[in-house]
Amino acid sequence: MKKESSTPTMKDVAREAGVALGTVSKVVNGLPVGDSYKTRVEDAIQKLNYQVNSYAQGLKANKTYTVAVLIPNIVDPFFSALAYHINTALLKQKYRMLLCCTGSDSTQEQEYITMAQQNKVDGIIGLTYNPKLVIEENTPFVTIDRSMGAGIPCVASDNFAGGQLAAEKLADFGCKNVAFLRIGSSLSNEPNKRKAGFENGCLSRGLHYEMKILDDSAPYEEFEKFLSEHIHNGKLSFDGIFCVTDRLAYSVIQTLQRLRQRVPEDVQVIGYDGIRLFGNMDYICSTIVQPLPEIAEMCVELLLRENMKTKPPLICLPVTYAYGGTTSENISNSDEIQQ
Amino acid sequence: MKKESSTPTMKDVAREAGVALGTVSKVVNGLPVGDSYKTRVEDAIQKLNYQVNSYAQGLKANKTYTVAVLIPNIVDPFFSALAYHINTALLKQKYRMLLCCTGSDSTQEQEYITMAQQNKVDGIIGLTYNPKLVIEENTPFVTIDRSMGAGIPCVASDNFAGGQLAAEKLADFGCKNVAFLRIGSSLSNEPNKRKAGFENGCLSRGLHYEMKILDDSAPYEEFEKFLSEHIHNGKLSFDGIFCVTDRLAYSVIQTLQRLRQRVPEDVQVIGYDGIRLFGNMDYICSTIVQPLPEIAEMCVELLLRENMKTKPPLICLPVTYAYGGTTSENISNSDEIQQ
Repeated sequence: MKKESSTPTMKDVAREAGVALGTVSKVVNGLPVGDSYKTRVEDAIQKLNYQVNSYAQGLKANKTYTVAVLIPNIVDPFFSALAYHINTALLKQKYRMLLCCTGSDSTQEQEYITMAQQNKVDGIIGLTYNPKLVIEENTPFVTIDRSMGAGIPCVASDNFAGGQLAAEKLADFGCKNVAFLRIGSSLSNEPNKRKAGFENGCLSRGLHYEMKILDDSAPYEEFEKFLSEHIHNGKLSFDGIFCVTDRLAYSVIQTLQRLRQRVPEDVQVIGYDGIRLFGNMDYICSTIVQPLPEIAEMCVELLLRENMKTKPPLICLPVTYAYGGTTSENISNSDEIQQ
Repeated sequence: MKKESSTPTMKDVAREAGVALGTVSKVVNGLPVGDSYKTRVEDAIQKLNYQVNSYAQGLKANKTYTVAVLIPNIVDPFFSALAYHINTALLKQKYRMLLCCTGSDSTQEQEYITMAQQNKVDGIIGLTYNPKLVIEENTPFVTIDRSMGAGIPCVASDNFAGGQLAAEKLADFGCKNVAFLRIGSSLSNEPNKRKAGFENGCLSRGLHYEMKILDDSAPYEEFEKFLSEHIHNGKLSFDGIFCVTDRLAYSVIQTLQRLRQRVPEDVQVIGYDGIRLFGNMDYICSTIVQPLPEIAEMCVELLLRENMKTKPPLICLPVTYAYGGTTSENISNSDEIQQ
């Protein structure tokens, strides 16, 4: 246990710095004081190793130093990695994370929004596809992947650029005739831009392409049917496939094996997200990697920065390509070989 | 947003039930009242669809309805699944989860324990290998996988039985000469019992066995060396391997492929944990499955149940075997084929 008696207090800092207690309080709470006072207080804080008591600080500043994170679940590795990086980014700022897996209980989401409006949490970072959710303008809320209205910033990977990059990589690796497969929410959302980006990339690189786009509710078997219909004399007419997520890519790769198509020899596959086995081992497939640490940092920054006149409505962060065994880098004409 | 004006209050319930406000309060807070009063209040609550305001309730009962969960990270799929099921179990009881990934900042752990002692959270569920952590007796704390001292219950899968089950399954599937591979914390902990259980199973089924046990700090390559040394004329002397986790099993399977040993034809592999790809797809390997929903429910039950005279020090929950492609069920003499 902490020995409270040996812990320096704000009074000790004031005595050490030779300033009034109020001056220390101002410095600790980031309020303006003269530069020389600020330096003296900061030096005293460092010398005494004074730890700001965030709870006491919270009481005065009407802050809880707690941020709620709403996410469908943390069993899906994309969501778990995202929640992990948000936790890390919050801890860096000395904030606590109240995590709510909303897939278990979707009525929770509106309750957390009420908590944010009542200052019971300092704000919310949420990834939600709940169409009924109502967030009033200027509620301290930052969304991921789906815009929720005016005054609510949305942070996402650059989905358009990612789709385009997938097409360009398939072209670089020798593909001529490609497909885009997508299953997911039909609600308007940022990941939908992967399709438009991919089309753009195909057009600019002269790839022939087809699309198969399913709603959440559609059975996966429709992809299997679509692929089977494109096999003639045992040969798939596509030599490259871009799947909207690594999860879909994994299923598609298994289907291709059942259909006796070799990956990557007969058909190359690129996914999206950058999922690694066990969180830090191999990539599941060749993939467009979302910059999760940067997305998390940006969400925290936007939520906690208070003196922004206008919060940006949409922030798209750059993606990268990673090799994961399902593309044929070696048949590429390009001299850029990525591991 | 909730329309507060249309929400029934405790007063409305009292009026509907024809009882005093204090009686409603007693029922809501689980305090004793006469049976007929209780029934009338409960009927009124149901009729009006009255929602207990857990915050107001918390203020009166000196409760926060918040539980802190300490876990190294949620990128490892075992930890993320565990945190997910704890969240689900807490939500069922109308509790919120403050999640702290302690691998990012291990100094946080002691701070949360202080919070629990000061009733700033109602308790802590923690999986930690921090040897410096000090938890006083009767702190509202439930640990997972590692005993932390008297008065602190520990919940784990039945690691001994799991080790034994792995040996029995390998014997069932025709193995004669097996190995146990382990890497992990050298701190005393429940998962260490997997070794003793495996030995016990080997002895009872007449399997010849060898062990290779490494500390956290050892390089993985020592396993590769160990396996190489057991290859004579291209043939591995083991026909079955039990790995202490699915994560280790995954690496070992890759090593075996590099060493030109076929899994499961030449050597069968069983892991421990029950990790599924993408959280809900295929098992990574044949495995001993930890009962994560039950472990989570038990932690929450033990933490929140207040009228227990003695909290049990160690609860071991039953494990099961699941087929994951790395064992040869079909060469088994047993008539029990599991999918």
